Amino acid sequence: MSRFETRNFLPKNFQPKNPDYRAIAIHTFEQQRAMKTLGISIARLEPGGVDLAMDYSAEFTQQHGFIHAGIITAGLDNACGIAAFTLMPALTGILTVEFKTNLLAPARGQRFAFRATVVKPGRTLTVCEARAYATHDGVETLIATMSGTLMALAAREEAAKDGAPAPV
Amino acid sequence: MSRFETRNFLPKNFQPKNPDYRAIAIHTFEQQRAMKTLGISIARLEPGGVDLAMDYSAEFTQQHGFIHAGIITAGLDNACGIAAFTLMPALTGILTVEFKTNLLAPARGQRFAFRATVVKPGRTLTVCEARAYATHDGVETLIATMSGTLMALAAREEAAKDGAPAPV
Amino acid sequence: MSRFETRNFLPKNFQPKNPDYRAIAIHTFEQQRAMKTLGISIARLEPGGVDLAMDYSAEFTQQHGFIHAGIITAGLDNACGIAAFTLMPALTGILTVEFKTNLLAPARGQRFAFRATVVKPGRTLTVCEARAYATHDGVETLIATMSGTLMALAAREEAAKDGAPAPV
Amino acid sequence: MSRFETRNFLPKNFQPKNPDYRAIAIHTFEQQRAMKTLGISIARLEPGGVDLAMDYSAEFTQQHGFIHAGIITAGLDNACGIAAFTLMPALTGILTVEFKTNLLAPARGQRFAFRATVVKPGRTLTVCEARAYATHDGVETLIATMSGTLMALAAREEAAKDGAPAPV
Repeated sequence: MSRFETRNFLPKNFQPKNPDYRAIAIHTFEQQRAMKTLGISIARLEPGGVDLAMDYSAEFTQQHGFIHAGIITAGLDNACGIAAFTLMPALTGILTVEFKTNLLAPARGQRFAFRATVVKPGRTLTVCEARAYATHDGVETLIATMSGTLMALAAREEAAKDGAPAPV
Repeated sequence: MSRFETRNFLPKNFQPKNPDYRAIAIHTFEQQRAMKTLGISIARLEPGGVDLAMDYSAEFTQQHGFIHAGIITAGLDNACGIAAFTLMPALTGILTVEFKTNLLAPARGQRFAFRATVVKPGRTLTVCEARAYATHDGVETLIATMSGTLMALAAREEAAKDGAPAPV
Repeated sequence: MSRFETRNFLPKNFQPKNPDYRAIAIHTFEQQRAMKTLGISIARLEPGGVDLAMDYSAEFTQQHGFIHAGIITAGLDNACGIAAFTLMPALTGILTVEFKTNLLAPARGQRFAFRATVVKPGRTLTVCEARAYATHDGVETLIATMSGTLMALAAREEAAKDGAPAPV
Repeated sequence: MSRFETRNFLPKNFQPKNPDYRAIAIHTFEQQRAMKTLGISIARLEPGGVDLAMDYSAEFTQQHGFIHAGIITAGLDNACGIAAFTLMPALTGILTVEFKTNLLAPARGQRFAFRATVVKPGRTLTVCEARAYATHDGVETLIATMSGTLMALAAREEAAKDGAPAPV
């Protein structure tokens, strides 16, 4: 067993600031029509950690019939966003500042998982990491990683956002 | 006028190695069902540079009714991939190694553009940059940037890829 | 000439919020002992754009005698930081949130330049891009790119920062 | 304990292809004068995992007296490079393709650790992750993360590299 893994990724017990974090995270997720269109659902939800699931759909493939990297990224980004959101105070909005995706293997399979965990929660910025897995004929393979930064928007900023030229 | 812009991003005249680069790039793009599903099309194609276009669709929105960051990323990634592909030799496949996206403003608008340019072509790896723009009521706004690495796959690797456990 | 370059990277006229931006940016730069140790100096400073310069030093090389990628990154990061800082209000501190570096060619040469420009200034977050060039026997080569996010710290946060467990 | 951490970062037993991996990795590290200048040493070395250590030095600080983000990045990059290198075949060179660093907390402390692990080894490209920690008055804090891509260079490419215009 690799001692490096163990030391690098110590378990954490995140304490949500918002007791309704679960209901609000699910509500926000369900308002995202892109998630419904892509067939992505919440498989698991904890403070600071989220699993999303997606079935294969030929509608979202690239030239080899695998799922397009952008779709995998959409799943990873959303997993990061919801994971960060579970630790934010009530009446806070959230937006993605940036993310990087490394693509490790073709997104080939019948089913896909996007698993995100908060690395560093913050008042304004939260850093998350996520991994995408493909399950092909019963074998799960790591296909992509993401590291990303999410930003909390206070309530009044959230309210004003629709009229604002830029979120940051 | 900023002298920094001028010096940093000098114009380049890329010479395609494959005289059929245009037909092959278009063919590869058209094989990507995700592009059709997302409503993304090629607006312009030159050696080392590509513009893609996408109309707004409520199907691909996040919780505020703007286009989801993952969908914007799919457009940026594809623009980078096609831009890199135009400079690769015949019988070469292409895959994305990694990309980073910075989200600068909400993806609000009726129409979106994804503009990629090759920064450094290479035998194996090509680095590209891309920018996403939203046109809202006639005003175009820069909404996201990408820097990414694309990898050329030689013909026999390309042929074997479906059976390989990983592309790299 | 590439029309892509032209459209993607339009010239901008940034207006500094702080009339003393130049003196304050230079002062902040000079407080960084790492810059002095690495032999990095300001070659040019405008609102939203900075050029840094560094001579070759064998002290900072990797196994092939070229400058180490981490040192190139230090120059790029600092160029981004100063570029962002020129557009921030008075009594603001600055810190780096994240950056990505793509390494394009060996850092071989007698002299190096780090050129940064602001892509999107913001109240809290500013996104910059930078490029590193090596001059070897009179020929300048693009060797690395960076895209990064910088964060403004308001005065009281700045004052309290030393005692805070984390900047974000 | 977070179940997310456990599932995302499964322990791995990497098998080195080169039985002399340890001696060669140490030799390559020792050829990097930048590491000696920065005071960075190898604290631990396993197939696919490396820990580096660095003492505080005022020579490499930013304006608040903390270690400069570029220096932290140099340590993280080197940890990734050596970790990837331990899994490469004999007569292979290595270079960094790209990395992203997220800065989580000020680099304040008397001692710093850079811990890298291979996420996905590959024939050409290897993806690594690393974390930087600062130890301040006996308390260790996670201060930065990196995800990066490293490239193996076959022997003849390695030999020819000094004369090549670009490594990729």
